[in-house]
Amino acid sequence: MAKGMLPRTARRIPDATIRRLPAYLRALEAEAGQRLTSAALGVLTGFSSEQVRKDLAYFGAFGTRGVGYPAQELASEIRHILGLDHELKAALFGAGHLGTALARYVAATHRDVRIVAIFDPDPQKHGTEIAGTVVESLAHFETEVQRLGVAVAILAVPDAAAQPLAQRLAAAGVRGFLNFAPVMLTLPAPADGSPPAAVHNIDLSIELQTLAYFVQVHETAQV
Amino acid sequence: MAKGMLPRTARRIPDATIRRLPAYLRALEAEAGQRLTSAALGVLTGFSSEQVRKDLAYFGAFGTRGVGYPAQELASEIRHILGLDHELKAALFGAGHLGTALARYVAATHRDVRIVAIFDPDPQKHGTEIAGTVVESLAHFETEVQRLGVAVAILAVPDAAAQPLAQRLAAAGVRGFLNFAPVMLTLPAPADGSPPAAVHNIDLSIELQTLAYFVQVHETAQV
Repeated sequence: MAKGMLPRTARRIPDATIRRLPAYLRALEAEAGQRLTSAALGVLTGFSSEQVRKDLAYFGAFGTRGVGYPAQELASEIRHILGLDHELKAALFGAGHLGTALARYVAATHRDVRIVAIFDPDPQKHGTEIAGTVVESLAHFETEVQRLGVAVAILAVPDAAAQPLAQRLAAAGVRGFLNFAPVMLTLPAPADGSPPAAVHNIDLSIELQTLAYFVQVHETAQV
Repeated sequence: MAKGMLPRTARRIPDATIRRLPAYLRALEAEAGQRLTSAALGVLTGFSSEQVRKDLAYFGAFGTRGVGYPAQELASEIRHILGLDHELKAALFGAGHLGTALARYVAATHRDVRIVAIFDPDPQKHGTEIAGTVVESLAHFETEVQRLGVAVAILAVPDAAAQPLAQRLAAAGVRGFLNFAPVMLTLPAPADGSPPAAVHNIDLSIELQTLAYFVQVHETAQV
């Protein structure tokens, strides 16, 4: 075990901390070979050094005061915590502009997430490739998803399609959803008592409307 | 003034509350003409009724116990607070797959946000239309943005382009950024003492890596 790293505690890590880990990871990977203080990690990620220290303490990472965290070791630790030390298999639903952009993005940037299947209802798209993956029909998507061991579904489908699709996918064993349709997905808890699938919504309406508020605040402040 | 609504206080509303307002707004607009209790609003948005009550109290909205909030009035109040009672002008940078998807999405769903200009370096795209807006060259984007009164820039550009572009746009008076490039934008505070531009990052890496964690937690829980 690396000096200054303690074994992970069983303490529950807050979701907000989990959401900051990818930012730390990116900064640490960019500085591999270095040691980074909380302050330096803060500057690179936009969080306060206090926040960095608090977050990293959750999983027992203690930087040596004034010397900081060894970037590479801390990066692997974070990858392990996030579950990124083994490949995550994803299926993309919807091969429109958004789906195409997402597939290319994931292929270009994610060694740890791999899109193993793309589904779209449009027969004209079937057999075409996006970032190396062939677009398939929706005819047998549930068996395909099970055969391929898909853990995560990325939904870039019309609003009305998202909820019924997510329900069928959850029943087929998909455990995580990245949903771009501006609808709230509600998934029943599995009958076997296992926890319900994780849903992350990326809702552009919310981003735009929230941004409107902050822009307005600026206007007021400038008057 | 509507019964049960008090004038807005000058109290600072937490960002997390602001981020939940669009979800309340969507639910309230879907139920216009009804009255909604905190519990009902909670079910529709996925937040606890306690959270709903706390959030709405920030801007002086008090539902009558057991009768709830008048949906339409509360919706206009939220629109006012978010600054959505007047149109927000946005410029889109990047007319690739992501940019195209975003332009169509905004045109289809946002009566309060309007994309008034689309810029892309590719000459083949110049003069083509996306959702009714013509794609222009980047030759004079700063003067265009000022002429059109653009408040918000949506950046769907390659990573390396985002930071220099955002700096020039901020200098040209753009006050809000919706950034899809996986880089942290740092904008200097304006020399005139006005607050720095608001930046919202939509980082798919972070969403995917966070989702990996929650999927992994499920696996562990199922063992």
